[in-house]
Order: sequence, then structure tokens, then C-alpha cells
Amino acid sequence: MANSTRDRIIDASSALFLQRGYAGTGLKLISDESDAPIGSLYHYFPGGKRELAAQTLRASGAAYQALVEAVFDAETDVVSGVRACFSAAAEALRLSDYADACPVATVALEVASSDEELRVVAAEVFESWLASATKRLRDGGVRPSAARELATTFVAALEGGFLLSRVARSVGPMRGIGEAIASLLEGELAPDGSRRFKR
Amino acid sequence: MANSTRDRIIDASSALFLQRGYAGTGLKLISDESDAPIGSLYHYFPGGKRELAAQTLRASGAAYQALVEAVFDAETDVVSGVRACFSAAAEALRLSDYADACPVATVALEVASSDEELRVVAAEVFESWLASATKRLRDGGVRPSAARELATTFVAALEGGFLLSRVARSVGPMRGIGEAIASLLEGELAPDGSRRFKR
Repeated sequence: MANSTRDRIIDASSALFLQRGYAGTGLKLISDESDAPIGSLYHYFPGGKRELAAQTLRASGAAYQALVEAVFDAETDVVSGVRACFSAAAEALRLSDYADACPVATVALEVASSDEELRVVAAEVFESWLASATKRLRDGGVRPSAARELATTFVAALEGGFLLSRVARSVGPMRGIGEAIASLLEGELAPDGSRRFKR
Repeated sequence: MANSTRDRIIDASSALFLQRGYAGTGLKLISDESDAPIGSLYHYFPGGKRELAAQTLRASGAAYQALVEAVFDAETDVVSGVRACFSAAAEALRLSDYADACPVATVALEVASSDEELRVVAAEVFESWLASATKRLRDGGVRPSAARELATTFVAALEGGFLLSRVARSVGPMRGIGEAIASLLEGELAPDGSRRFKR
């Protein structure tokens, strides 16, 4: 059962950090939500809250990447794949009362200027996402010279969509942004190249 | 001097909330950074930290909107305007060691699911930004039916750019995203309509 206790702690931390931020989440609350005593938290994460946050960012970042990749890979082309990711994100927001969003962004913004160790962990998570998205766009026919920037724009727009949709409590922003990014990719992939991203 | 003390408190809060988040910023730190005693904070903001945060979000949201509008309006067309906003954001990040970013997003993500009063304030700030951007895109020739969604995509991409550039400590994401969004608008404005955003 050792692993399951650790998993429960990570799951509770991920949900709490996403919804309340890093500074707003105390170890007591994580202990309560994961049904694990404080001693267990220090047993699995001797470095305390910072180590727990680092492991949570890594675990939830990898899980979220796998989820987005599965949604994307279920479609037959990159435009449909991108559109499906925004639709799935909008639906997850709606079904969770606007709580189910990016598990990394809230903590990443909090720590970007104040905790170098956690900033580096967040940077590694985003880099992994960007590498994955870049590869998928290339495999789907996007020019290699444009793939990285379009992948970055896809991830940034999804993150901005989470922010605007959560704050407005509406799927409208996420859905509209998804259509715009799909249109940007359609232009890139137009057969005659006339609508291509000019880089 | 009453107003200047209040302004100093708001300025210090804005910088601290942006860099450390809402939960990570105590009144003591705001007092120290603004050189105003705790009693002054409660004099100007009887509702304490939440009221101070609400007023800070409103003030810094309005100031940031005015700044972005000035950068945008200095250009002669919407594509150049959008490109200039991303360039200015990238430059502000670089010059501030990646600290000078959106003054609303960090707190907005923290409170979106945990503090309804502050969520509503953040929603009002973003709505004002979206209305301003929508008007500017329409005035610049974007079809009314597409202006709101493209404005939303512009704001979301800028927010995602702040996140990715701050975390990576690089202007690369912000610059690349800016080029992609400029390209999306170029397609919308193409004379023959062939590259238009399909809505």
C-alpha cells in the first residue's frame, strides 16, 4: 500500500495546487484531502512542501501530456487533433464547474520569479509538452521550420483559454480560441501554400 | 499625501501579487514594500487583504489595458499593432529579468475556484480587455463576426506567452507566438478573403 499512499498524496496535491495555488495550499490541507498523516507526507517527501510540489508538477505534467496526446492521436489529422484538444478542455472545464484545468500553470506563475528550483521543474514540464506537440505537428505535415512556433502557440492558446474560461466561468473563450488555432493550422497546411504562416 | 500612500500600497501589491501570487503575499510584506504601516493598509482598505487585492486587480488591470492600447494604437494597422504588443511584452520581460508580466493572471488562476468575489473582479478586468481588443480589431477591418474570437485568441496567446516565457526565462515563446497571431490576422484580412478565419 506504500505506493498508493504516495499516489493519493500526489493526487490531492495536484488538485489543491491547481485550485488554490502553491502558497495557498498547506501541508495540513494536503494531509486531510489525501487521508494521509503529516508524517507520511514527510516520509515520502523528506524535502517537505517544495519537494512534494516538484514531484506533483512532474507527475501531473506527465499525466496531462499523456491525456492531451491521447485526445490528439485519436484524430486523423492535426487540425482535427488540435480542435479535439480544445473541445476536450472545454468539456472538462464545464463538467468540473471550471476547476479541471492545467495542473501546472497556477503554480508555474506563482513560482516563476520566486522559487528557482520549482521554476526549473515547471520549465521541464512545458518543454516536454512543446517537444511532443512539435513532433505531432511535423508528423502531420507542418513544415519543420514552422512546427515549433505553431506548437508553442497551440500550448499558449490552450493555457490562455484555461485562464479566460475559468475566470469567466464559460466555455466560450476555450471554444473560440480552439477554432482560431485550428484555422491558423489550416492555413499552414493549405495545398497551395498561399495561407502559410510566413516565417 | 493621502493619495500617494494609497497609490504606493496599490503599486507594491500589484508587483508582489504578480511575482508571488495572492496567497504568497502577506500584508506585512506589502507594508514593508510600500513603506506604509499596517494601520495605513487597513485605513485605505478596511476589508483587508481581499479588498486590497480587488482594488489592485482593478487598478493594475486598467493601467495594463491603457499600456497595451497605447502600444497598439501607435501602429497604423491591426497586424502591426498585434505584433507590437507581443514585441513590447517580450522586451518588458527581458528588461525585468522575466518579472514584468500580466498583473492579473497569477491571482486570477489562484482565486478562480476558491474566491468568488475576486474571481468576479478578475472576470471584469478580462472582459474590459476583450471589449477593447474586439473594438480595435473591428475598427481595423476584421469582420464583426470574427472580431470577438480573434480578440480572445490574441489575449489568450499573450497570457500563454507570459506563462511560457517567464517559466523558460526566454523571450522566444512570446516572440514566436506573436508572429503566429499576426499571421492569423493577416489571413483574416487578406484582400480576396481566401485566408479568412472560417466562422
